[in-house]
Amino acid sequence: MTQPLRLHPDRLFPADAGTRAVARRLYDAVKDLPIISPHGHTDPSWFALNQAFANPAELLITPDHYVFRMLYSQGMAMEDLGVPRVDGGPVETDPRKIWRRFAENYHLFRGTPSRLWHDWVYAEVFGLDVRLSGETADHYYDVIDAALKTDGFRPRALFERYNIEVLTTTESPLDTLDHHKTIASSGWKGRVLTAFRPDLVLDPDYEGFRDNLHSLADLTGRDVMSWDGYLQALRDRRAFFIERGATSTDHGHPTAFTADLPRGEAEALFRRVSTASATAADAELFRGQMLTEMAAMSVEDGLVMQLHPGSFRNHSATVFDRFGRDKGCDIPTPTDYVRALKPLLDRFGADRRLSLIVFTLDETSYSRELAPLAGHYPALKLGPSWWFHDSPEGMRRFREQVTETAGFYNTVGFNDDTRAFLSIPARHDVARRMDCSFLARLVVEHRIEEDEAHEVAHALTYGLVKAAYKL
Amino acid sequence: MTQPLRLHPDRLFPADAGTRAVARRLYDAVKDLPIISPHGHTDPSWFALNQAFANPAELLITPDHYVFRMLYSQGMAMEDLGVPRVDGGPVETDPRKIWRRFAENYHLFRGTPSRLWHDWVYAEVFGLDVRLSGETADHYYDVIDAALKTDGFRPRALFERYNIEVLTTTESPLDTLDHHKTIASSGWKGRVLTAFRPDLVLDPDYEGFRDNLHSLADLTGRDVMSWDGYLQALRDRRAFFIERGATSTDHGHPTAFTADLPRGEAEALFRRVSTASATAADAELFRGQMLTEMAAMSVEDGLVMQLHPGSFRNHSATVFDRFGRDKGCDIPTPTDYVRALKPLLDRFGADRRLSLIVFTLDETSYSRELAPLAGHYPALKLGPSWWFHDSPEGMRRFREQVTETAGFYNTVGFNDDTRAFLSIPARHDVARRMDCSFLARLVVEHRIEEDEAHEVAHALTYGLVKAAYKL
Amino acid sequence: MTQPLRLHPDRLFPADAGTRAVARRLYDAVKDLPIISPHGHTDPSWFALNQAFANPAELLITPDHYVFRMLYSQGMAMEDLGVPRVDGGPVETDPRKIWRRFAENYHLFRGTPSRLWHDWVYAEVFGLDVRLSGETADHYYDVIDAALKTDGFRPRALFERYNIEVLTTTESPLDTLDHHKTIASSGWKGRVLTAFRPDLVLDPDYEGFRDNLHSLADLTGRDVMSWDGYLQALRDRRAFFIERGATSTDHGHPTAFTADLPRGEAEALFRRVSTASATAADAELFRGQMLTEMAAMSVEDGLVMQLHPGSFRNHSATVFDRFGRDKGCDIPTPTDYVRALKPLLDRFGADRRLSLIVFTLDETSYSRELAPLAGHYPALKLGPSWWFHDSPEGMRRFREQVTETAGFYNTVGFNDDTRAFLSIPARHDVARRMDCSFLARLVVEHRIEEDEAHEVAHALTYGLVKAAYKL
Repeated sequence: MTQPLRLHPDRLFPADAGTRAVARRLYDAVKDLPIISPHGHTDPSWFALNQAFANPAELLITPDHYVFRMLYSQGMAMEDLGVPRVDGGPVETDPRKIWRRFAENYHLFRGTPSRLWHDWVYAEVFGLDVRLSGETADHYYDVIDAALKTDGFRPRALFERYNIEVLTTTESPLDTLDHHKTIASSGWKGRVLTAFRPDLVLDPDYEGFRDNLHSLADLTGRDVMSWDGYLQALRDRRAFFIERGATSTDHGHPTAFTADLPRGEAEALFRRVSTASATAADAELFRGQMLTEMAAMSVEDGLVMQLHPGSFRNHSATVFDRFGRDKGCDIPTPTDYVRALKPLLDRFGADRRLSLIVFTLDETSYSRELAPLAGHYPALKLGPSWWFHDSPEGMRRFREQVTETAGFYNTVGFNDDTRAFLSIPARHDVARRMDCSFLARLVVEHRIEEDEAHEVAHALTYGLVKAAYKL
Repeated sequence: MTQPLRLHPDRLFPADAGTRAVARRLYDAVKDLPIISPHGHTDPSWFALNQAFANPAELLITPDHYVFRMLYSQGMAMEDLGVPRVDGGPVETDPRKIWRRFAENYHLFRGTPSRLWHDWVYAEVFGLDVRLSGETADHYYDVIDAALKTDGFRPRALFERYNIEVLTTTESPLDTLDHHKTIASSGWKGRVLTAFRPDLVLDPDYEGFRDNLHSLADLTGRDVMSWDGYLQALRDRRAFFIERGATSTDHGHPTAFTADLPRGEAEALFRRVSTASATAADAELFRGQMLTEMAAMSVEDGLVMQLHPGSFRNHSATVFDRFGRDKGCDIPTPTDYVRALKPLLDRFGADRRLSLIVFTLDETSYSRELAPLAGHYPALKLGPSWWFHDSPEGMRRFREQVTETAGFYNTVGFNDDTRAFLSIPARHDVARRMDCSFLARLVVEHRIEEDEAHEVAHALTYGLVKAAYKL
Repeated sequence: MTQPLRLHPDRLFPADAGTRAVARRLYDAVKDLPIISPHGHTDPSWFALNQAFANPAELLITPDHYVFRMLYSQGMAMEDLGVPRVDGGPVETDPRKIWRRFAENYHLFRGTPSRLWHDWVYAEVFGLDVRLSGETADHYYDVIDAALKTDGFRPRALFERYNIEVLTTTESPLDTLDHHKTIASSGWKGRVLTAFRPDLVLDPDYEGFRDNLHSLADLTGRDVMSWDGYLQALRDRRAFFIERGATSTDHGHPTAFTADLPRGEAEALFRRVSTASATAADAELFRGQMLTEMAAMSVEDGLVMQLHPGSFRNHSATVFDRFGRDKGCDIPTPTDYVRALKPLLDRFGADRRLSLIVFTLDETSYSRELAPLAGHYPALKLGPSWWFHDSPEGMRRFREQVTETAGFYNTVGFNDDTRAFLSIPARHDVARRMDCSFLARLVVEHRIEEDEAHEVAHALTYGLVKAAYKL
C-alpha cells in the first residue's frame, strides 16, 4: 500500500505542546539563515564543472556509506549496489536495479538519520509526495532521473537554491586545487573553500606514505628528506591552500595522542619513519609530534586546526580487500583526550592565537573530558556531534552532556561533514531543529529566558561557526 | 497504613498525552502476542515433572539474586533470607519469616525493575490488591501459599496461562537433557528448548575444567585430550543438543576477546591448558580461540551463537567463600568489542551463515562500538539490554543509543534471561511497553509514521526474535 | 536592553503539566526542610570570626573556579579577574572592574549551573530584579556591596537565614581546628563540623609530603618515621577531629586504587616513600594501601569514609606555574572501581561497621560499576553526582543510571561540596527540584505511587544524609 510522504513542520520538536511552541518560535527565527558548511567532503569538481549528476543511484546510493552499510549488514551484496571492486570485477551497473534494491529495503532505515535526510531530499528537492518503497521505486527513479537532467538540478543551481553562504571541501596537500581555482576565476559567486588535510604526508601508516613525501618534494622543490625541508614543504603547501581560500586544517588520526619532542629527537624520529617502515610506536609518536608541529604552524599562519580522532579504519579485512577504504566499516574506539592532548596543550593551550576544534566518536568523553577541557583552555573548542552521532539523539546527548560544563560558546555550530551534497540542507535543518528543541527545554524549565535562547540559537546556527572557522 | 496495589494500564508510557495515546495504540496491538523467550535460565525439571512450587519464599525470594542482593546491601544477612551456605551451616528455614523480612523492606526496591516484576506477579498472578509491606506480609504469604498448592499454579498450567509459544533453557554440554526428553515425550504441547552453554569445557579458569573434559570424554567416547578429539566431542554434543531442539549456543566469557590461531598453535595451546593449570594469558587466549571455533561449528550446524561478555564474576571473596557462585556480586567491567571481535569477524563476519548475537553490560559500547559493528557486519546482531540494564531506563538507553546507527532490524527483540519463571510475562510486558514508548516518541516527533511504528513494534515483539533465533 | 530577573517557582520541573504538578507537590513538602551540608569547603574562620565579606568580586568571582575558568576559556586573562599569581606579580585589584568584566560576559554561563546558582543569590539574597549584564553591572555592584556592609549579611546571620542545620568543612590533619573550637565555645548555636582530609600526609606525590610527616610528628609526638608510629599519629589526629565534631574522613585520590599488603610489605613500602622520592608505582601503591588502613581505622573509630577519585589535577602546566593549585584545570579521567576497590572491599566490604561513600567524575561508572557495587556491598554507598556533574542534567543522569540497580536507599542525599557559601541554598534547591522531578516522572509513569515518592523525597533531602553521615 502506497503511503504519503510528509515532512511535518514540527518534526524533531519535543511533543509537549508548550515546549514545542517555544521550539517553533526559536526555529522560525533561524530556519532561513544561510548555510555555513565549514567542514565536508563534497567534490569541488561539481562546482568547477557544473555538470549534471548522472542518475539517482550514482547520486544517492552508491557513494553513501551510511546507505550501503545498512543494506550490507542485512545481507545484501555490495556488488548488487554497484559499489566498485578493487579488482575491477563485475558489479551491478544498472542504476534502476540498484535503486529498486534500495527502495525495497527502505524500511531498514526507520529511526536512522539517513531516513530523515533522504525524505527531505525526496520531498523538498524533487517534490515527491509518496513514501519510498518497492512499489514506488520506479516512480521515484523516473522523477529524480528526469529532474537531474534539467539545469535547475546542476550543482551550482542547487548551491544557490540551498542558500549556501560558504562550503568547505577537504583536500590533501598534494592536491593542486585546480577545481578551486576554476571556481574562483569562473565569475560564479558561490564561495567554495578548501581545507588542508595532510594525513597522507603526516601518518607513516598511510598507504604510500614515503611516495607521498616524494610527491610533496616534487610540488614544493624542498628537500623533504630533511626534517627542516619537510616542515618547510608543509608550510609552503599551507600557504598555497591559504591563497586558495583555506581557513582550516583537518587531521584524521586514530587517536588524539600528541607529543612535543626536543628538536633532535623529532629529527631522528622523522629520519626513521621517512626512510623505512615505521614501527607502530614510532608511527604513533610521529603522528603525535606532527599534531604539535601543525599547531605551531597554525599559530604562525592562522589556520584553524580540526582534530577528528578515534576511528578504527577499515575494520573488516574482507571488505577492505574487496572494496578498499571508506566502505562503511570504520568503527569508533575508546578515545583518551586528557593525557593525549596534554603535550600540545602545555605548549599552545593558553595561546589565543591557536584555535583547535576537537571532535569525538566516543561520547563518554563529552562530560568527562572534552567539556572540562574546552571549559578551561582558551585554544580549545568543541566540534559538534560527529559521524555516527550526527543524528537527533546524538545531538541531544552532545548538548545535554557538554553545555553545563563548557557552555554554548565553547562550541562551534554544526558541521555536515558530508559528500552527500543533496542532503546538506536536510542535515543543517536537523541540527537547527535539535538545537532549538534543546533550548526550548531550557526555556520551559526556566533555566534561561526566551530572549537569550534566541541569541544562542542564532549563534549556534550562524555566528559561532563563522567566528570559529574565520569565515 | 495499607495502600492499594494498582497496575495502571498506562504504566511506563510517557506522560505527554499525545505520546501516551500513540504508545497505547502500539501496545494494544502487541500486548497479547505470544511470548517468545529465546534465552533464559528456568529449570526444565519444572516442566518435566510439573510439581507444585514449594512456598512463596522458595519461589520468589531465596533464588532471586536481584532480590537478596538489595536486602544484603542494606545490611541484612543472607542467612536470614535462607540462602544456602557452602559449608551447609544453618540458615533460616522458615519461609514465612523469610517472606516477612522481604516484605518489611519492600520499599528498598522503589524505582527498580524488581518492584515492577513483583507487583505484576502479585496483582496479575495472585490477584492481590494491597501493596506488599510488613503489615500485609502474612496476608500475602497466605494467599500465595494457598494458590501454589492448586493445580492452576503448577508450572505447565502457568506456561499455558502465560501464552508462551517457546521457552529456551540453558544447559551445559555435560547435561543429558533428560528433562527435555521427558517434556518432548510427555504429550504436553508446551515448547521448551535447550541452549548449548559450553563455558565449563571451554574456559580453563572454570572450576573443575579438566574434570569436565573427562566427563566430556565419558559422554562422547572421544579422545578429548587431543585437539581433534576435543573439537569432535564438542561437535557431538552440539548435534545432540540440536536433536533435543536447541537452536542456539551461549557463551559467558569475561571479555569479548577472540583469536584465530594457526592450527598448530591452537593445538599446542590446548595441550597446555588441558594438562596443567593455565596461565591467565593462556586461559584468555584459549577462550578467545574457542569462540572462533564455536563460530566455525555454527557455520556448519546452524546454531545461532550468543556472546554475553564483561562480568567480573563473584567479586566479593566473602560472599563467594560462604555462599558460592551467582550470589549477586557479579560486577560489570569496561568491555572492548572493536579489537576483541576482529579475529572472529575477519573470518566469519561477512558469512551470512553465521548469526552472532552480542550482548553487553557496558552501555558505553552501544553507540561507540556495537551499533557501528552491527550496522556493518552481516553476521552480527545486537541482543537487547541485559541483566542490570533489563529495566525501563536501560531499555530506553539501548534504543536511543543503538537505533540511529544500527536501525531496528539489526536487533533481535527481547530476552528475559531469567530463572524467575513467575515474572516472565512481566518482563516481556516491560519490554513491549518501553519499545512502544520509544516508537511513540519517534511518531510524535515525526521521525517515522504510525503505520511503520506498528510494523516495528510487531517485529521487536515477535518477528525479529523468531527469525534471529530460528524458532 | 535591561531584562527582568525572575526565579520562576516551577524552574527545573518537567514541562509536561501533569508531571510538573506532581513535582510541585513533592517539592512543596521538602523545600523548607533544613539544609544538611555534610561535605564542603567553606572557611571555618567565617563562622568563628563572623566578619563581613569584603566586596562582591572577592566574595563571588575571584575564588570561584567555576566562574573564572569559563571566562578564561573565552580568552580573558585570569589576572584581569584578580586571581593571585604565584610570583606575587600584579593582578587587577579594583573589585568593581573585576565585577564589570564578569557582568559583561554573563551570557557565557547560559545553560550552566553557575548561572542558576548566581541568579538565585542575586534574587533571593540581594533582592535584585534585573538580569546581570554589562549595563546592570554597577547597579549590581552597589546593591551587593552595600548589603555586605550590614550585619544581616555576615556569615552567622546568613547561616541562620539559610536554615542550615549542620555544615561540614574539610581540614587537613595538620590543622589545629582553632576556628572550630572558637565556634563551639562561642555560644552561637550554628553547627559547623570538620572532616578529616589526610591526603597531604597519605599521598607521597603531594607537595611537601615528607615535611608534612614531620609536622604530623610535631603535632602528635609520635615517631612518624616508623610504620606503627605513623599509623598511631593518624589515629591520634582522627581522635582529635572526632573530639571537635568530625563524623567523616575524605580522600581525594587520583584513582580509586586500593591495596591490602601484608604488614611487612606495607612497612617496607612506607620506609621507601617516607625517606626518598617515591616512584610513581610506589606512590600509587602507598595511596592504595592507606585507603585500606583508613577503612580499618574507620571500623574502629566510626568515621564515615568518603572517596573522591578520578581527577587529573592541574592539567595546564601554564596555569599551574603561574597561579598554583585549584585554578579550574582539574580534568576528570576514566576511573575503574571494580578492580580498584576489590582489595579494600574483600577486607571490609561486608563489614557493616564501615560506611564508605564513593563519588565519581566518570559517569560511565554509574550503571556499569558503582550501582552494581553499591547494590551488593553492605559497606558501600554512592555519593551524589559531583563537581562537573553537580548540575541538573548531571543529577538526572545519576538518578536514571543508578536507581534501577542500587535503589534510592544506597545513595546518601546531596553534597554541595562548595566554598561558595552564598549559593549553598541554591545548590540544595537544585538537587531538591531535580530529585522531585525524577520522582514525579516515576509517579506519572506509574512506577511508584505518589505516597512513596513523598517518602523518598524526604529521605533524599534529609533522612538519608543524616543517617549516612551520622549527623
